[in-house]
Amino acid sequence: MPFAQIYLLEGASEEKKRLLIEKMTQAIMEVVQVPPERVRVAIVDMPATNWGIGGKTLKELLPSMRKQADPDQAS
Amino acid sequence: MPFAQIYLLEGASEEKKRLLIEKMTQAIMEVVQVPPERVRVAIVDMPATNWGIGGKTLKELLPSMRKQADPDQAS
Amino acid sequence: MPFAQIYLLEGASEEKKRLLIEKMTQAIMEVVQVPPERVRVAIVDMPATNWGIGGKTLKELLPSMRKQADPDQAS
Amino acid sequence: MPFAQIYLLEGASEEKKRLLIEKMTQAIMEVVQVPPERVRVAIVDMPATNWGIGGKTLKELLPSMRKQADPDQAS
Amino acid sequence: MPFAQIYLLEGASEEKKRLLIEKMTQAIMEVVQVPPERVRVAIVDMPATNWGIGGKTLKELLPSMRKQADPDQAS
Amino acid sequence: MPFAQIYLLEGASEEKKRLLIEKMTQAIMEVVQVPPERVRVAIVDMPATNWGIGGKTLKELLPSMRKQADPDQAS
Repeated sequence: MPFAQIYLLEGASEEKKRLLIEKMTQAIMEVVQVPPERVRVAIVDMPATNWGIGGKTLKELLPSMRKQADPDQAS
Repeated sequence: MPFAQIYLLEGASEEKKRLLIEKMTQAIMEVVQVPPERVRVAIVDMPATNWGIGGKTLKELLPSMRKQADPDQAS
Repeated sequence: MPFAQIYLLEGASEEKKRLLIEKMTQAIMEVVQVPPERVRVAIVDMPATNWGIGGKTLKELLPSMRKQADPDQAS
Repeated sequence: MPFAQIYLLEGASEEKKRLLIEKMTQAIMEVVQVPPERVRVAIVDMPATNWGIGGKTLKELLPSMRKQADPDQAS
Repeated sequence: MPFAQIYLLEGASEEKKRLLIEKMTQAIMEVVQVPPERVRVAIVDMPATNWGIGGKTLKELLPSMRKQADPDQAS
Repeated sequence: MPFAQIYLLEGASEEKKRLLIEKMTQAIMEVVQVPPERVRVAIVDMPATNWGIGGKTLKELLPSMRKQADPDQAS
């Protein structure tokens, strides 16, 4: 404890995941004073077909999300 | 919020997942009045080797489940 | 299997939860053919202090959400 | 998406939870470029009786953890 | 890692939870060789109003479950 | 109910998973008196790139973990 779990759109690079674990751990340790080895973070990769917002899958939503804004916006 | 997550036997088609997200979102919105974009649904695909009922894996159980009834029953 | 879990803003009535479990189960059974007793649904009540959107807690967000729209919108 | 969930020892103040949600959201946004409102964080408060490390509950472990080090170490 | 989480009907005694964490940790360590301190177990207490089987809540189901069998059967 | 979920380092054999489900189910049934078919266990396989301890991924940590001790220790 503390244990954090994050659902992320599939396809993040290994380096991005490494960085996410590092930054989330730092964020947690700034607020909850614990020895670093006590903090666990798990990333669950989610395919765009398996994640829904407002009843539509990310697979359906991503094209219009990407048109609206920069290509990173949809992850 | 609300955020729903569902564990499903691996192998559902993309269309089945799309429909599941649509129907679960509708079900949630019938009960909890929220704007649709507030409702998130995540599907986690589970291999039959990774899911246990009564101490046996679905992989062990599926053959007899399918004999008992129609082939969809085991998912 | 299938097993669904839903995070809900704390404070829903017992009847609302009962209905949510009923509707979500129906939604799942319309898509995945399984005997009803195979479908499990768990509701996790979340206090408004424990849920964040865009870095703010629902406790901070609810007053303005409720001004913008009808009082049910924030749940 | 992304959706993060964190298990935390029960008893954190409302302000500590607010800060944790803020910092975790920032950490996520530094790595995954998404509009802030896309990031959700849920805190699940865990009683010390409900969390185990190495087969012992935090309730059993906390006294010796606190002797070893500073009182914040155990959370 | 490994990290286990278990949903349990609300109302288990502190001693029952302690035992559950102990036994689950032992079970995990018999199969996965890890130092004990690496194994974490979290118990999530679920009210009978928040858990559904086949579209009915445990609150609705418990009376008939208890008639059928011994009173522990329903947890 | 009860429903248990366990995060495990990716790569466990099918037999190891079968055994883990069997042992965890037995452990649960020793403490909580329920008919066996009421107990569900789900294993979530986690890649070493997706799991962090103290801000480092298991992928970074495994080599030194394995030097320190026996090769099973890191899972």
